[in-house]
Amino acid sequence: MTNPNRLLYELEGAQGQRFSPYVWRTKMLLAHLGIDYQSQGVGFTDIAQAAGGGFKTVPILCEAEVCVSDSWAIAETIIDKTDGALFGGPAGRSFARFLHDWSSLGMLGPILRLNAVTIWQDQAPKDQDYFRTSREKRFGKTLEELCPDPLADLKSLSRVMRPLDSALGGQPFFGGQAPVYADYLLFGNVQFARCTGPHDILSQNPSLEAWFERCLNLHGQLGRSEPSYTERHAQ
Amino acid sequence: MTNPNRLLYELEGAQGQRFSPYVWRTKMLLAHLGIDYQSQGVGFTDIAQAAGGGFKTVPILCEAEVCVSDSWAIAETIIDKTDGALFGGPAGRSFARFLHDWSSLGMLGPILRLNAVTIWQDQAPKDQDYFRTSREKRFGKTLEELCPDPLADLKSLSRVMRPLDSALGGQPFFGGQAPVYADYLLFGNVQFARCTGPHDILSQNPSLEAWFERCLNLHGQLGRSEPSYTERHAQ
Repeated sequence: MTNPNRLLYELEGAQGQRFSPYVWRTKMLLAHLGIDYQSQGVGFTDIAQAAGGGFKTVPILCEAEVCVSDSWAIAETIIDKTDGALFGGPAGRSFARFLHDWSSLGMLGPILRLNAVTIWQDQAPKDQDYFRTSREKRFGKTLEELCPDPLADLKSLSRVMRPLDSALGGQPFFGGQAPVYADYLLFGNVQFARCTGPHDILSQNPSLEAWFERCLNLHGQLGRSEPSYTERHAQ
Repeated sequence: MTNPNRLLYELEGAQGQRFSPYVWRTKMLLAHLGIDYQSQGVGFTDIAQAAGGGFKTVPILCEAEVCVSDSWAIAETIIDKTDGALFGGPAGRSFARFLHDWSSLGMLGPILRLNAVTIWQDQAPKDQDYFRTSREKRFGKTLEELCPDPLADLKSLSRVMRPLDSALGGQPFFGGQAPVYADYLLFGNVQFARCTGPHDILSQNPSLEAWFERCLNLHGQLGRSEPSYTERHAQ
């Protein structure tokens, strides 16, 4: 995975942890297609200067001096350039695009509130201020006030995810026997939870739980090679 | 559409209107596959005796004395019996199953609350009591109290549907150039709103609005052949 001509900028915490849900979508996609790249970790406050400047979010994928930001734009560019099949057909593409928007509010919002304090703790000092200030402004609360009742929030998040549990319907992946981009998109969300806090967000949804284990095993256990929050703090 | 050996039981109001979202999913599916049937309208209180008894919900589809209830079970049975393609592949099947569960709470709940009073008004007298009693028990409020601020509820419903608007992404249907079952499932939900109340639930989501017009035109304008609430009450 070290092609110096292809560079992936990814969010990096104080211990080198890679935790961005959007970056994980891209990393799984690149691994699936066997596209190698060099990884460049950046803290929250480095993003504005990364890849020549002008970007606000990661992932940023650069090749031959052309840089693309935004996980959806990267997915569209790469999947359309190959054979398009990784969406799982037009209906699978609709599903993925739906999930991109729906899960931003429905999953990533709640996960961020659950893990806001541990995410903050695990950033380099230069990034802690930025993270606290920007998130407290967005939510109108201190990080410590965001999740007064984690059990209630986990229960509510489990309910939000229940239709995903049903959707698997006995299939190993949302794409059927093999994963499609919708799998990688959702994997990125759950991996974000796994890497940033101690909560098991899947315990109420057994099909999703088994699916996530399968995803962690894909591509030489790429997802599992990133330590979970709990593993990192036990070391 | 009058094969006396295949019978579809569908919910019917006082003016003969067909308004069940679940039945519309099945009707569009049958029309897509060119499967003809005889229609049997039933009021809410007739369902328990329909098709020999034992069913609680419509649609009920009977053929050669075998009856299947539940729109999802019917879809699985029929689509798997044909070539399976109408799901749009395994990812499209996941999408449809996700929507089946997600849209029950996310779309049908809000539409029912918006139109509870007009649905009640448009039932035969024998069904009005049942509808009022069962729904008031479920929600713990009178039908008249369910939607004190329709504009606020429409705005909230529009927000819930926004990811669907994005998901079309320039495609004519969720299935791409042609509809798949996910299209018919969502069509059933919007047709339910169109047939039971005066509210335009799509005005804030222009891609969905154009998509719904395309769906109304499918299969010899099958969906449009059912008058909207507004058309029915202007007659």
